[in-house]
Amino acid sequence: MSERLAALREQIDALDTQMLALLNERARCAEEVAHTKLAEDPNAKFYRPEREAQILTRMQALNAGPLRNEQITHLFREIIASCLALEESMRIAYLGPAGTFTQEATFKHFGMNVGTLPVDSIAQVFREVEAGRVRYGVVPIENSTEGVITHTLDMFTQSDLRICGEISLRIHQNLMCRHENWQGVQKVYAHAQSLAQCRYWLDKHLPHAERIPVSSNAEAARLVANDDEAAALGSRQAAPIYGLQIVQDSIEDNANNTTRFLVIGDQMVGASGNDRTSLLVSTRNRPGSLYHLLKPLAENGVDMTRIESRPSRTTNWEYFFFLDVRGHEQDKAIHDALEKLRQDAEIVRVLGSYPIAIM
Amino acid sequence: MSERLAALREQIDALDTQMLALLNERARCAEEVAHTKLAEDPNAKFYRPEREAQILTRMQALNAGPLRNEQITHLFREIIASCLALEESMRIAYLGPAGTFTQEATFKHFGMNVGTLPVDSIAQVFREVEAGRVRYGVVPIENSTEGVITHTLDMFTQSDLRICGEISLRIHQNLMCRHENWQGVQKVYAHAQSLAQCRYWLDKHLPHAERIPVSSNAEAARLVANDDEAAALGSRQAAPIYGLQIVQDSIEDNANNTTRFLVIGDQMVGASGNDRTSLLVSTRNRPGSLYHLLKPLAENGVDMTRIESRPSRTTNWEYFFFLDVRGHEQDKAIHDALEKLRQDAEIVRVLGSYPIAIM
Repeated sequence: MSERLAALREQIDALDTQMLALLNERARCAEEVAHTKLAEDPNAKFYRPEREAQILTRMQALNAGPLRNEQITHLFREIIASCLALEESMRIAYLGPAGTFTQEATFKHFGMNVGTLPVDSIAQVFREVEAGRVRYGVVPIENSTEGVITHTLDMFTQSDLRICGEISLRIHQNLMCRHENWQGVQKVYAHAQSLAQCRYWLDKHLPHAERIPVSSNAEAARLVANDDEAAALGSRQAAPIYGLQIVQDSIEDNANNTTRFLVIGDQMVGASGNDRTSLLVSTRNRPGSLYHLLKPLAENGVDMTRIESRPSRTTNWEYFFFLDVRGHEQDKAIHDALEKLRQDAEIVRVLGSYPIAIM
Repeated sequence: MSERLAALREQIDALDTQMLALLNERARCAEEVAHTKLAEDPNAKFYRPEREAQILTRMQALNAGPLRNEQITHLFREIIASCLALEESMRIAYLGPAGTFTQEATFKHFGMNVGTLPVDSIAQVFREVEAGRVRYGVVPIENSTEGVITHTLDMFTQSDLRICGEISLRIHQNLMCRHENWQGVQKVYAHAQSLAQCRYWLDKHLPHAERIPVSSNAEAARLVANDDEAAALGSRQAAPIYGLQIVQDSIEDNANNTTRFLVIGDQMVGASGNDRTSLLVSTRNRPGSLYHLLKPLAENGVDMTRIESRPSRTTNWEYFFFLDVRGHEQDKAIHDALEKLRQDAEIVRVLGSYPIAIM
């Protein structure tokens, strides 16, 4: 080994020694935070989503590289989770099975070593949290192939749980075949949205292959398992299940393709400074009801980022609206808009104010 | 928020700012290491398993808490992986599908953000590494329900790949039922080894239930899926697949139940100071051949920790022996013993010298 290399390794060792000391110093501070909170409130909870979001945002703002913001965020999430684990052991239910994007989102948000409980339906995730068997649940709310997961929205009409956070996960599309010889494929199966997401890549590399939209990417992989002349698009998880090879990875045209998940629990989350508020609003189906609904928001300068309407299951001709707005329910603009909204609508429920996902 | 709490949070913020600077300083040093190595050898590899093991061992030795050694090891693995990711992007093949212990072991060892390729057989893991499509492969070598994975051993008789590392993973046993009412179950299905691992717990909590050994824990879960009066033991992964609930977790009598995996590649790994060497030895099946084999090891004071014999597939009546010894092949004692061994045995191959797994 050269002298230069030896010197650099010594320098790295010295940095690691300093970091080790700081990590333990941080853990000691976190212990004191816990003791202080317990002295003020015997039922205090130590995990504060808004505080974590503030720390991560601050680290990204201060980060001068060479480590990328995504790496810094990942490392500090793990550091925060390790300190927290000394105070309380949290268990998180998620829509399983293991190996899905929802599991990946759970580990990304709560750290690799959090206790998890994979369950087999979105309803079961809600039940596990309601019964107190886990502290939080993680459910998908929006993905690139199915759009909004309406089943998750509907659960909020039957449950008092709140949204305590959201998680964004970058999704990649892969080309999968039985054989490596993908240049010769005649057909490409996938969900229409996946086909659309890879349009430019397919135009360039497989211009003559027929693009066949099917009900899901899993269905596409299943069809390709019996067809040497076809390829499927989708997440890498599908490949080993159907005996396919990933012959090209990350072929999506837009690298910022993400999927969104919600963290559900029974906690009121304070303002982090960059928050989203989700609302459930129900109104009579009279002409112009939607306009009436949106008016107080617009008049108070509240920025609405999403609206979904869902038929009510209990009464004919009634609708639920799910709205996302920017800001925290304690912000004056949102508070005033909600006051106004409550005069017009049958139901106005704040599903939660929570930090906007940090990538 | 109390003044005390505000002061503590300020202190944590200051620590985080320092850590951020150190993390980026470390990444800059790692970049310089890479440049220095490239100047000396244009084909240099930046990931050095022995160096990583030394760093982790050093951090554990210096760790004064309150963070536990396992937490410190996890955090530094992620820090090292982040720095490395700036220099080279590694992809690792593992025995899939996603959601298995082998995936968990891969992420534990190489960090959460390493690129992975799940494949559907141990042979395929070897092929992916041999073809250079991935840098390393991860395969199980020993688990609590099946013992040594002989198929992995046999692959080394057909492949020139080397062992570059090992991974230990803590395994938990769970009690799973269709319903929460587990106290009433009449039967407990599981692999015999899982039943044995939970013996004291079962004696105490389900003394009257019949214990029925079956071929695998997956088979046990499948049987329980149709039987309200039965429970299965096994890893949590099985529960959602068969619609079972985890009614009691971590019920194994011995909390140190671990499973072992090998990292395979084409790299010679230097000595870390706490290493294991795996040998493949073949000999004629003459009387006393095993004794002859072991003698040079014993005479040189080499500590043998394991031996497995496997029939050769090519010649009748010949055996392969797989041996693990403590130390590195460059250690004088092992070097001398191997010289001696080569005079007696037909084949003596060092499968690899690599750092002993750090938990």
